[in-house]
Amino acid sequence: MPTYQAPLRDFQFILDEMLNIYEQQHLEGFEQVDADLVDAIFQGMADFATKIMLPLNSSGDAQGCKIEDGQVTTPQGFQQAYKQFVEDGWATLTCDPEYGGQGLPEVVGTFVTEIQAATNMAFAMYPGLTHGAYSAIHAHGSAKLKRKYLPKLVSGEWTGTMNLTESHAGTDLALLRTKAEPCGEDVFAISGEKIFISSGDHDLAENIIHLVLARLPGAPSGVKGISLFAVPKFWVNEDGSLGENTGVQASALEHKMGIHGNSTCVMVFDGAKGELVGEAHQGLRAMFTMMNQARLGVGMQGLAQSDISYQNALAYAQDRLQGRALSGVQQPKLVADPILVHGDVRRMLLAQKSFNEGARALVGQQALWIDQAERHQDKALRQQASLLAALFTPVVKGFITDQGFKACVDAQQVFGGHGYVHEWGMEQFVRDARIAMIYEGTNGVQALDLVGRKIMGDQGAALMTWAEQAKQFIEESRTEPQMEKYSQTLIKNLGDLEKATQYLAKHAPSKPDVLGSASMAYMQLLGITSLTLMWARMAKLALRALASQTQEHDFYQSKLKTADFYMSYWAIQTRGLVVQIESSAEQICEYDAALF
Amino acid sequence: MPTYQAPLRDFQFILDEMLNIYEQQHLEGFEQVDADLVDAIFQGMADFATKIMLPLNSSGDAQGCKIEDGQVTTPQGFQQAYKQFVEDGWATLTCDPEYGGQGLPEVVGTFVTEIQAATNMAFAMYPGLTHGAYSAIHAHGSAKLKRKYLPKLVSGEWTGTMNLTESHAGTDLALLRTKAEPCGEDVFAISGEKIFISSGDHDLAENIIHLVLARLPGAPSGVKGISLFAVPKFWVNEDGSLGENTGVQASALEHKMGIHGNSTCVMVFDGAKGELVGEAHQGLRAMFTMMNQARLGVGMQGLAQSDISYQNALAYAQDRLQGRALSGVQQPKLVADPILVHGDVRRMLLAQKSFNEGARALVGQQALWIDQAERHQDKALRQQASLLAALFTPVVKGFITDQGFKACVDAQQVFGGHGYVHEWGMEQFVRDARIAMIYEGTNGVQALDLVGRKIMGDQGAALMTWAEQAKQFIEESRTEPQMEKYSQTLIKNLGDLEKATQYLAKHAPSKPDVLGSASMAYMQLLGITSLTLMWARMAKLALRALASQTQEHDFYQSKLKTADFYMSYWAIQTRGLVVQIESSAEQICEYDAALF
Repeated sequence: MPTYQAPLRDFQFILDEMLNIYEQQHLEGFEQVDADLVDAIFQGMADFATKIMLPLNSSGDAQGCKIEDGQVTTPQGFQQAYKQFVEDGWATLTCDPEYGGQGLPEVVGTFVTEIQAATNMAFAMYPGLTHGAYSAIHAHGSAKLKRKYLPKLVSGEWTGTMNLTESHAGTDLALLRTKAEPCGEDVFAISGEKIFISSGDHDLAENIIHLVLARLPGAPSGVKGISLFAVPKFWVNEDGSLGENTGVQASALEHKMGIHGNSTCVMVFDGAKGELVGEAHQGLRAMFTMMNQARLGVGMQGLAQSDISYQNALAYAQDRLQGRALSGVQQPKLVADPILVHGDVRRMLLAQKSFNEGARALVGQQALWIDQAERHQDKALRQQASLLAALFTPVVKGFITDQGFKACVDAQQVFGGHGYVHEWGMEQFVRDARIAMIYEGTNGVQALDLVGRKIMGDQGAALMTWAEQAKQFIEESRTEPQMEKYSQTLIKNLGDLEKATQYLAKHAPSKPDVLGSASMAYMQLLGITSLTLMWARMAKLALRALASQTQEHDFYQSKLKTADFYMSYWAIQTRGLVVQIESSAEQICEYDAALF
Repeated sequence: MPTYQAPLRDFQFILDEMLNIYEQQHLEGFEQVDADLVDAIFQGMADFATKIMLPLNSSGDAQGCKIEDGQVTTPQGFQQAYKQFVEDGWATLTCDPEYGGQGLPEVVGTFVTEIQAATNMAFAMYPGLTHGAYSAIHAHGSAKLKRKYLPKLVSGEWTGTMNLTESHAGTDLALLRTKAEPCGEDVFAISGEKIFISSGDHDLAENIIHLVLARLPGAPSGVKGISLFAVPKFWVNEDGSLGENTGVQASALEHKMGIHGNSTCVMVFDGAKGELVGEAHQGLRAMFTMMNQARLGVGMQGLAQSDISYQNALAYAQDRLQGRALSGVQQPKLVADPILVHGDVRRMLLAQKSFNEGARALVGQQALWIDQAERHQDKALRQQASLLAALFTPVVKGFITDQGFKACVDAQQVFGGHGYVHEWGMEQFVRDARIAMIYEGTNGVQALDLVGRKIMGDQGAALMTWAEQAKQFIEESRTEPQMEKYSQTLIKNLGDLEKATQYLAKHAPSKPDVLGSASMAYMQLLGITSLTLMWARMAKLALRALASQTQEHDFYQSKLKTADFYMSYWAIQTRGLVVQIESSAEQICEYDAALF
């Protein structure tokens, strides 16, 4: 059975030492945030997650959800755990105090969700989707809708879902067919079938609020004719009491590779009663405004699964005795050396560790940008943060879930044959982590969003803004000779990024398809380069701490050595990615479809 | 439900045009092999596999095996299919005619197993393990043992297993504890527990012959004290009739990530009666002599799963309509373009196609080396082939299963959300392919075998032999100007390989652990370089065919363009691997274990 230690010290390092969040008093909502409060929240979540959520991860996977007469039941223990989750107020953290939330910033909330997604990703998706529905109604709903739905979504007494996909319309929402017909004052009858609906139906809450994309009569075709509706499972009367089922039902559970504890449903809307959220035909735009946050959440799943995989692989490598070190016996009293002595085991573990800690720093930075974009008093800084958050949204989602999955596969590999059987839990991490590369926009879609909208769409303005920050960091580090090597690596990475960007700028006008064929390598390039900056920043902090204090020597020494490993293993990969783009992107577009 | 087309034309291309196997009359057993016979065998296997094995792949995965009172039952349909498999003689192809086999060369047999492993990997493992047991007894058993066991193993009426792993002894067989006590003339009582035993017990055959590693009384400790025994499930009397259970039983089924249709068992030997195979204490050596063949079989599983994944992903990409090409609408009459227009989908598919066809050529070459090592009339050539087969054994197993798994993951990605649900079958390929990176020696063990035994162990002699062949090919291609670019790429790859080898030679004497930390990158480097040679050879054949004939233009054009893609996407990766070794290998060894 896997174990888990929430990386609380790393959270402190990122929030306090790297991002200085307790000095961001100019951010609305940060006033009452202090280190004691935040540490207590993390500790509380860590306790809850390791005691309640983690033990249900494997059993939830084995049992899965069941459906009978359109009513879904979750695995044993989920009901009780969810009840406790709600009672302890875990659903409310980052929500608006006006509706019962605690108003905490995203940068705190994001690490709370890391703990949840690490210990039980399938379970964490119930509050996760609820938060998405909360955000949609909060951002776009009328005052009436907000009063009706938000308090119970904030508390977690009701849960939420996002109903976008139809069997013929996944990535391409322009094709969706679900209809909405007016059927009374501000009420619409929704008809259609949606697939892959996470937390679609279950037995955890007394009501479920489905956010549904559908077309109004006479709506323009394509994405400009899509509206967003709130369709509750049970109608909510004026007095707050629950009425009848509105006409929505789960018709089946999807049979999935993983996340078995989450009830992924086929949902049938049979003239189901719902209300419009926001303006007619503006549904897709409404969904898009929540995308940064939702994709951050999925990127976090990739990191979370990678981290719990790493923790268990490391423990196994320290414990499992097989063979001897090539350099000679390390543990003569034991029948064999622990497999941590073997070079390829170390390589896999260091690749995971350096990726995880770098990605965690990037995720923290991204969450802070999202907070700043919403809450910063300075409009110019707000706009800049918004630009950077938009730029890094596909990187956080696509790059982190891709590499996070690979890390889970490597961690499984450390276990040898034991990694392939359920008992040790490692193969579940691989199966669960796999979905994060697919949902909330496949990683191919992320890569295309990056090169298309985020890079070419603004002629590289956002990228230049970010690169300027990196260059400023290099400039500020000149006085510290030990920083020279990190700065040099960062300069090389930025140079490679520039080359790749120039390649796109040069070829895209005449051959737009090049953008697609270069997109994945480009996303990796920006991902690796951004982690190089994160590691350079962390190395700088570690160097200072090691020079000025004697406490926690191992923590800072580990940071410094892991930064060095990152530079020598990950950062060197940018050159190859540029070469790949330059040598293969055109060929990929031009390959004759008949010759596949 | 996935579909499959056996790549019969590609088999012909490799066997006839590239390897010229029908001109290898100096190889014993090849005399009666002609193209008509071989094509008929492939066609027959393709028919059987697509009609009988493929339909049982998904249902076998869903049902899995069951155990009751120590008796395992296989999924519905497996019994009937296996009966047919035996009746049609598919088990006998490459076996010794003296025991009822057809004596076909490995180079033919290997592509027969590709078809099996593609359509139903779990099912194919029953005859696959049987072949391993056949080979062990054939190579090391006494005349009496051979007479007793081989005819029924060759026909497939009985099946076989390999019992190596114990829970504390996986990679490190020195630690194994299973005991063998003499208990009569040439009979031993075997006691111990073995885990992860593929095809350990089942209902497909009337008897199962377990090959078991165990220690005799007073045996030296470590690997020098391990002997190999044949323990039948039911004792075989002098007259060939079956007696009682010898004392071996499956105590449990392993609960695995995939290959559910294969009965992976925990086996308990409770004083089970068995006979010694080969000399006492020479058991590990006996196992090692079959390793090239067994690891070729596992490498083939990686390729086979990758190929069926590719075939289905391509079909889906041609069929699935979502979005429009960046360069403008391609199919104005359809609601959207097929997703094959999108650059990243094409990138994934081309990466798979170019890998698969290159790997298939390498596997063919490797199988021919194994044949030549066993059957060539010229002793010097036999030795050279043996050297090359040993060198490429870890590459075929480790590199092909690693990349084959990644290809399955990419193919699943092409399907978006549909890739994550059972219904389309893509996620099963990922789960099934995953084991090939682990069993028959983890890929980390393969990489270490490569750099340790195969490269440093003979001071690079085998590698130089192979590199000479590559250089000779370059030399012979000088007269063909169109070959220049392929030769140039190959020269670059060989240069990178040389740099990496020099790095190992320089650092290993003082820091042996460097071998381990550089091993995986080195294995990839040799894998990619060897496929560059394969693709250069195939490009040469395609160029000639395109110049001299008008038939099958698309087939040869596809080969040529795929070779070009390989050069621009895969072959360019060797530089980055050398940089990785040079910059990170020492750090990996020196990273303080306390700082993980």
